Amino acid sequence: MDSTMQDFPLTVAGILRHGTTWHSSRRVITKLPDGYRETSYGELGTRAAQLAHGLRQLGVSDSVRVATFMWNNQEHLEAYFAAPAMGAVLHTLNIRLAAEQIAYIANHAEDSVVLVDMSVVPLLAPILPEMKTVHTVVAVGEGDVDALTSSGKNVVRYDELLDGQPIEYDWPDVDEKSAAAMCYTSGTTGNPKGVAYSHRSTYLHSMAVCTANAIGLADGDRVLPIVPMFHANAWGQPYSALMAGADLLMPDRFLQAEPLVAMIEQQRPTVAAAVPTIWNDVLQYLNANPGRDVSSLRFVACGGSAVSLKMMKEFETKFGVRICQGWGMTETAPLAAVATPPPEVNEAEHWALRSTAGRVLCGVEIRIADDDGNVLPSDGKAVGEIEVRGPWITGFYYENADPSKFHDGWLRTGDVGRIDPQGFITLTDRAKDVIKSGGEWISSVELELSIMEHPAVLEAAVVGVPDERWQERPLAAVVVKKDSSATAEELRKHLCDKVARFWLPERWTFIDEVPKTSVGKFDKKLIRSRYADAAYDVVECRD
Amino acid sequence: MDSTMQDFPLTVAGILRHGTTWHSSRRVITKLPDGYRETSYGELGTRAAQLAHGLRQLGVSDSVRVATFMWNNQEHLEAYFAAPAMGAVLHTLNIRLAAEQIAYIANHAEDSVVLVDMSVVPLLAPILPEMKTVHTVVAVGEGDVDALTSSGKNVVRYDELLDGQPIEYDWPDVDEKSAAAMCYTSGTTGNPKGVAYSHRSTYLHSMAVCTANAIGLADGDRVLPIVPMFHANAWGQPYSALMAGADLLMPDRFLQAEPLVAMIEQQRPTVAAAVPTIWNDVLQYLNANPGRDVSSLRFVACGGSAVSLKMMKEFETKFGVRICQGWGMTETAPLAAVATPPPEVNEAEHWALRSTAGRVLCGVEIRIADDDGNVLPSDGKAVGEIEVRGPWITGFYYENADPSKFHDGWLRTGDVGRIDPQGFITLTDRAKDVIKSGGEWISSVELELSIMEHPAVLEAAVVGVPDERWQERPLAAVVVKKDSSATAEELRKHLCDKVARFWLPERWTFIDEVPKTSVGKFDKKLIRSRYADAAYDVVECRD
Repeated sequence: MDSTMQDFPLTVAGILRHGTTWHSSRRVITKLPDGYRETSYGELGTRAAQLAHGLRQLGVSDSVRVATFMWNNQEHLEAYFAAPAMGAVLHTLNIRLAAEQIAYIANHAEDSVVLVDMSVVPLLAPILPEMKTVHTVVAVGEGDVDALTSSGKNVVRYDELLDGQPIEYDWPDVDEKSAAAMCYTSGTTGNPKGVAYSHRSTYLHSMAVCTANAIGLADGDRVLPIVPMFHANAWGQPYSALMAGADLLMPDRFLQAEPLVAMIEQQRPTVAAAVPTIWNDVLQYLNANPGRDVSSLRFVACGGSAVSLKMMKEFETKFGVRICQGWGMTETAPLAAVATPPPEVNEAEHWALRSTAGRVLCGVEIRIADDDGNVLPSDGKAVGEIEVRGPWITGFYYENADPSKFHDGWLRTGDVGRIDPQGFITLTDRAKDVIKSGGEWISSVELELSIMEHPAVLEAAVVGVPDERWQERPLAAVVVKKDSSATAEELRKHLCDKVARFWLPERWTFIDEVPKTSVGKFDKKLIRSRYADAAYDVVECRD
Repeated sequence: MDSTMQDFPLTVAGILRHGTTWHSSRRVITKLPDGYRETSYGELGTRAAQLAHGLRQLGVSDSVRVATFMWNNQEHLEAYFAAPAMGAVLHTLNIRLAAEQIAYIANHAEDSVVLVDMSVVPLLAPILPEMKTVHTVVAVGEGDVDALTSSGKNVVRYDELLDGQPIEYDWPDVDEKSAAAMCYTSGTTGNPKGVAYSHRSTYLHSMAVCTANAIGLADGDRVLPIVPMFHANAWGQPYSALMAGADLLMPDRFLQAEPLVAMIEQQRPTVAAAVPTIWNDVLQYLNANPGRDVSSLRFVACGGSAVSLKMMKEFETKFGVRICQGWGMTETAPLAAVATPPPEVNEAEHWALRSTAGRVLCGVEIRIADDDGNVLPSDGKAVGEIEVRGPWITGFYYENADPSKFHDGWLRTGDVGRIDPQGFITLTDRAKDVIKSGGEWISSVELELSIMEHPAVLEAAVVGVPDERWQERPLAAVVVKKDSSATAEELRKHLCDKVARFWLPERWTFIDEVPKTSVGKFDKKLIRSRYADAAYDVVECRD
């Protein structure tokens, strides 16, 4: 039986209309080298309309990809709304990737126009000639555009593009399942893979962020998205803020602890989001500079890698700021889980749950599966690869037929862990790093943490290496502290009461430093290949 | 360009899975004459599955209408989930309607099975023979079912229907745009009209209720839905509670102030919802019985008719309870607006905004239009009929081709009022009661309120009556207090500085009592017909 409800689509234009109409006096504040510049949501609506008219003059029509190569600022926000609302597709390029990756991504997505902040022109200019489908570059900000024009592309200044354009745009009715925005994942293996968010997924994800079990973004909140707008929609906050009527505080390129703390003191955000590294820097800065006040923050979303309990407790007790872990990835729009414990638990349980990656949000269905695709119980004990499905979860990659990341309609996240009966997720490994020993899984991360609890150990990385009998066994690569010493036997004994007996590594190597990737994570691929090349001195140690 | 996101439907089964899996220990508590009975969300999931199996044995399949004739209790909640999740359609019958209306509605909807609380069997039994399409009655609770069996229908007991059924049900994939639940509006004119909510509209409305700008329902909240589950989904709270992980406290038929206050003290709800009459009764009871504690309530949603500022202030200052107005109707699922002022306004502005009907929620688009369908500005001054559109707004009525309630894809709400630039709605009239005088609109409600400010006036109703020159002019029907007196001249003078000059009524009648409808509203239709029949002594009074 059909319902009698209106067939009304969920679109980015709907969010834009709501925010710019009913919250027209809310602010967008962008950090400058010295001070800030401001506009209102009303003005944002006007300028988004002008940008859409300008883009249309540049030949942008339905489904055309409009790329951005920008920091978090007002113009990036204008593009966030104008491109999807006019029926085009916003494509946020990650300015931190290697040049060849950026070129590959722009070509794969067939970007047509690129908006670029003048401050990152030196990064883009050398790549432009490789961007085959890009015909026009829009320069945002003041300064010399010679480096762009020499690429042979058409170059337009952003302000001139908007100047004199009509201040209203008749946003078209778009199919809610059509693409609104694209983002590529930068996996450590293979080419980057593209995700195309729909209007529907963007709308639903934004609503989810506004629910009380997620971030509960509300009218009058002031949001500071430190996580870049080129990373999975800045965790959806630009869209959620317009939905809620929350001010947006844009840090632009000023992402060091000192300007961030100054911005927090001066602009008094209530909500912020960033990766743990940034909050670690902020914490160190606050400790080194007593008397600074960041207490306006009621909720700080933190994710991307594990957040230490120590940091969360220190922020909460010393600075009155709740840091809350969230879990997700580009493929999940990104928010899929938030680590908010139920109000009735005791303090120990509270912190144990705060230490998890998060609790699954309504709208995301979650399960774990073993290597053979068997679904395992969410009992807080079984460990498997986490799989998710739902209306803001990726179903396939753009122009990529590889089905290996999907399982019966569920996304295989590549994260390995446990789910407790209340939906709290504990991550134990990345799927590619888990050690498969005789049909059982060993968590490389948990082994590392246990080894690093030994007082003589500075760092330890554990990887799986081939083993004739067990298929794979752990290799522990350990960095001992200066003026300390530890033998393999000692470390193995140290682990005895911490992990299961079959987890105990037989192979140990003592190295000067754990090799790291460009973003500071342990480079386990390199460790495995060095082991294969016999580049390490390996100590064998068994009982 | 297509997106790459999963084509994942928004369904009632999705809400059920979330609530019963990840919030399985949350409670459903139902009031008994003496005490309470309890179950968990986990058990709710089990029993909903058993009910679905039982209903299937009764011949219920896709799209079949399963009616309920029930109070707010655990079994009603089980039906709320089981019927839609199995692909059938839940149809909540309003037990307070006249017998012939209930029969009309059940026949129009073609209900197949009716679930009935034993406590309301005396209301249903006499109507059952008129319910042509109903073949089976399911009796909920203990007691004699003779009154039901004598109707000739198949009669089954609820517990026996569930007994021994499998505790899991493979909820089918349903189209999110198919009907999940039906509800009929009981207009004062014409036959009741049916609204069929979709799975999609139910899901989106439930999410909206969980957003911080609406009710912000969260894990650990305890919700007391006093508004009946046969009124527009109890304002969506049964579904939102499972989405959020909030306990549900069900008052069953114990809706008087005394048992409600006892339930609030014993069960400590954080959120409740009811019409103003109930809260007025509760307030009087609290004032008459000092020392009662209702301070567990952090947010009380109130709507259906205007809430007095005095009551809101008294609840807040004396009892620590925030009463918040909401606006909506059966056709809007129902929540469309909530009167939460921005945090930065001063106290006077705060209370002025609290006195409005509410501020429009993201997801609902709103505007006002004049008689000719011209859209008027939302400037807080222009008055027109309020029109809404959006994914949880009705687009047409079930098996009813009348297009008069719709305008270019917008629902004409029948409410007349103003919208301010921030989206706060002030209601001035029902469209059928507004007085159209020489092309201008006069608010009958505002005239009534102004007349009732006169110390000698007990009640006053104002209706439009035919006028040769102006098409319509106001007639004021006034009830003077015992031992008081007032003339038409005095009252007209009293109005002079309160309303526009052209609003001043020339026609006055003094009556003993304002005629009222069955739900206690002024019966303006009857007043108009009595005037037409010259049943009133009318005093003419002009300057």
